[in-house]
Amino acid sequence: MRQLSTQDTDFEQQLATLLAFETVNDANLLKTVDDIIAQVRLDGDSIVLALTQKFDQHPATSIHELELSKDSLAEAFATLDDEAKTALTTATTRVKDFHQRQVQETWQYEDELGNRLGQKVTPLDRVGIYVPGGLASYPSSVLMNAIPAKVAGVKEVIMVVPAPKGVLNQLVLAAAHLAEVDRVFTIGGAQAVAALAYGTETIPQVDKITGPGNKFVAAAKRAVFGQVGIDMIAGPSEVLVYAEGEADDRADWLAMDLLSQAEHDRVAQAIFVTTCPKQLAAVAIEIEKALNNLPKADIARDSLKHRGALVLVKDRSEGMAVINRVAPEHLELSVNDPDALLNDIRHAGAIFMGRHTPEAIGDYCAGPNHVLPTSGTARFSSPLGVYDFQKKSSIIYCSESGSKPLAKTADILAQREDLDAHARSARYRYQ
Amino acid sequence: MRQLSTQDTDFEQQLATLLAFETVNDANLLKTVDDIIAQVRLDGDSIVLALTQKFDQHPATSIHELELSKDSLAEAFATLDDEAKTALTTATTRVKDFHQRQVQETWQYEDELGNRLGQKVTPLDRVGIYVPGGLASYPSSVLMNAIPAKVAGVKEVIMVVPAPKGVLNQLVLAAAHLAEVDRVFTIGGAQAVAALAYGTETIPQVDKITGPGNKFVAAAKRAVFGQVGIDMIAGPSEVLVYAEGEADDRADWLAMDLLSQAEHDRVAQAIFVTTCPKQLAAVAIEIEKALNNLPKADIARDSLKHRGALVLVKDRSEGMAVINRVAPEHLELSVNDPDALLNDIRHAGAIFMGRHTPEAIGDYCAGPNHVLPTSGTARFSSPLGVYDFQKKSSIIYCSESGSKPLAKTADILAQREDLDAHARSARYRYQ
Repeated sequence: MRQLSTQDTDFEQQLATLLAFETVNDANLLKTVDDIIAQVRLDGDSIVLALTQKFDQHPATSIHELELSKDSLAEAFATLDDEAKTALTTATTRVKDFHQRQVQETWQYEDELGNRLGQKVTPLDRVGIYVPGGLASYPSSVLMNAIPAKVAGVKEVIMVVPAPKGVLNQLVLAAAHLAEVDRVFTIGGAQAVAALAYGTETIPQVDKITGPGNKFVAAAKRAVFGQVGIDMIAGPSEVLVYAEGEADDRADWLAMDLLSQAEHDRVAQAIFVTTCPKQLAAVAIEIEKALNNLPKADIARDSLKHRGALVLVKDRSEGMAVINRVAPEHLELSVNDPDALLNDIRHAGAIFMGRHTPEAIGDYCAGPNHVLPTSGTARFSSPLGVYDFQKKSSIIYCSESGSKPLAKTADILAQREDLDAHARSARYRYQ
Repeated sequence: MRQLSTQDTDFEQQLATLLAFETVNDANLLKTVDDIIAQVRLDGDSIVLALTQKFDQHPATSIHELELSKDSLAEAFATLDDEAKTALTTATTRVKDFHQRQVQETWQYEDELGNRLGQKVTPLDRVGIYVPGGLASYPSSVLMNAIPAKVAGVKEVIMVVPAPKGVLNQLVLAAAHLAEVDRVFTIGGAQAVAALAYGTETIPQVDKITGPGNKFVAAAKRAVFGQVGIDMIAGPSEVLVYAEGEADDRADWLAMDLLSQAEHDRVAQAIFVTTCPKQLAAVAIEIEKALNNLPKADIARDSLKHRGALVLVKDRSEGMAVINRVAPEHLELSVNDPDALLNDIRHAGAIFMGRHTPEAIGDYCAGPNHVLPTSGTARFSSPLGVYDFQKKSSIIYCSESGSKPLAKTADILAQREDLDAHARSARYRYQ
């Protein structure tokens, strides 16, 4: 596993290389995706069914067989063992509790002229959530996408999840039941994104599509952006764990936290940053030890080899600079005084504070969303939240007297912009 | 000008045709834009200068001549006449006042287990605002893009504005001075977007790009989305004016409000919706009258002919349905009781309430932003605001005892997702 130090003369360059990750912009892929979208717009249900039969080897013979009933979701939950039921229910409750605090309300105020200004907040009417199928089909993703939408007040949440060979993950369906998803279609890929964006005879058109997916899904989301809203183009998952070699640190804990990211994906990224050379060496040893006995060791090794790093910094201030440079999706602060660092952290998707807050707790049940900005996009974007499922309309009410001075100002500025009808429209209100 | 009625058997189809507007997806345009972006990433300053010389016929011979000093902005303001100074200053003050109410703050709370959860709010570090040059170079756009960024706490606002043949609009520069823009480069097109997204030797890389532009700018923004944040892909501007033929309505005012949209652009859209056939006829007559004496009559006629409509609805409830179907960028409610309608309006960028609130007041100086979702995207997006220049990071702090039950739940769910390192990382915290 690569080791870097801020003392290296080419540290900046090494860090830039480590972080470089471009989403595939393969022209063939884009063409395929564009073609699928065009076909779905033209042929609707029939092509969605045909592509699902082809790509997912799904045995359905009609589009209606691709929709799951609400009863089947309830049934999936009912047949779970108690341990799973309790865990999923706990996660649901906690995620709902947290997100309820994100709800925004309409506000209005009166200005000194007697005009009323404000912002009306309205939930989106209908949204689609994409849940990957097959190996990486996660019930937790269902909760994290559907719950904020429901808390926002979205009337209809449509979930799509591919079912390769018709096989479904029962935990995913149970999660859809708990999260009160309204309709589920077992479709996936660019065809599912296109169906949600434009609607077909059977699949309703939505206003926004959220949720992760493979490169076809990512390309399709980018292509339909504007027709519908999208959450983000997700890149590989990353964690940055920061420590300072304090007495309470446990190298085996730190190593396992890094591995919990590395086991996700061969392109996942785990970075350890420490001010202490001894701790850096100890964590390297513990990673090797743990890898000897990890089911997904093969994936994790690849991830650590190609995208992982152990980074030595001189002091806390350098540590903070590296964190802000990386703008990590997940940031763990394994220090005695994590609150002291909070002000200096400008870019991170989620901040896990102290030694008893591993990323895994946030992935499942702490409450905050696990859909987070990746690949440095925490510089400008936020965790998925209720705010993604509410939108705002400005409210402007001018009284007859309050309108006059504003109309005068608008008249003057409109004339300077050579917009004569604007100016006259304003002038009517004060002359 | 086309007249529709909800009584027409094909009303739905006619309305769909009226609203259909797809942003250009011309393959040649996309290729040109992709090539420009690739060149700028490779060659930086030199290609930005060369393209500016070529496309804008700008006389500069070095990239540094393309940057304006802060003094030149102050100078542009100082040389304005008093009327313009006062109008711009009033607009600045009101826009700032409104946007200050949108500032979001960091929050945290303690759960019943003694864990702390919350959301840290941080301004973006550096943003770019695109201001069109030439004919449609509007000082109001500078205020509406730069002020929310500054109110959010963005440290550095970089403005780009093309200067065809080196000529600049002094009002635009004066607005940049008032809005406290930090740096201005006189560049435009896809090359300006690429320079802001990736940075060059001279032009700093930003975290988000906002502001309208031509089709090259729109395509470039879509292409760099993910590398940086963007506000939206803006379509043509639209207004929907709603009235019910009440005694206080003035057909000449309503006509001028529609024309103030139509004069913007040949593809701008002005729609009048009324429950009253007599009012519909009267507004049609007033539009014709006003067109006889409007500098931009030619543009407005084209816009009204191809994209405008006068729509007759049976009653208020049908009116609200048409409004929500259109999801207009600007919505004027010319009725005695606009507040009574507010609850039923689900989709609109900005709502102008009552007869004394023409869109023009909102365009310049009411306070709310004039950068609004177009082409029906008010279904899922919001006016530009301070929230576009702040982002959130989740805060999760688990106490030693509060961590244990959550770690247990995470352990169980991680096992069900076959993520062993996740499970072990959680288990360390409770065993």
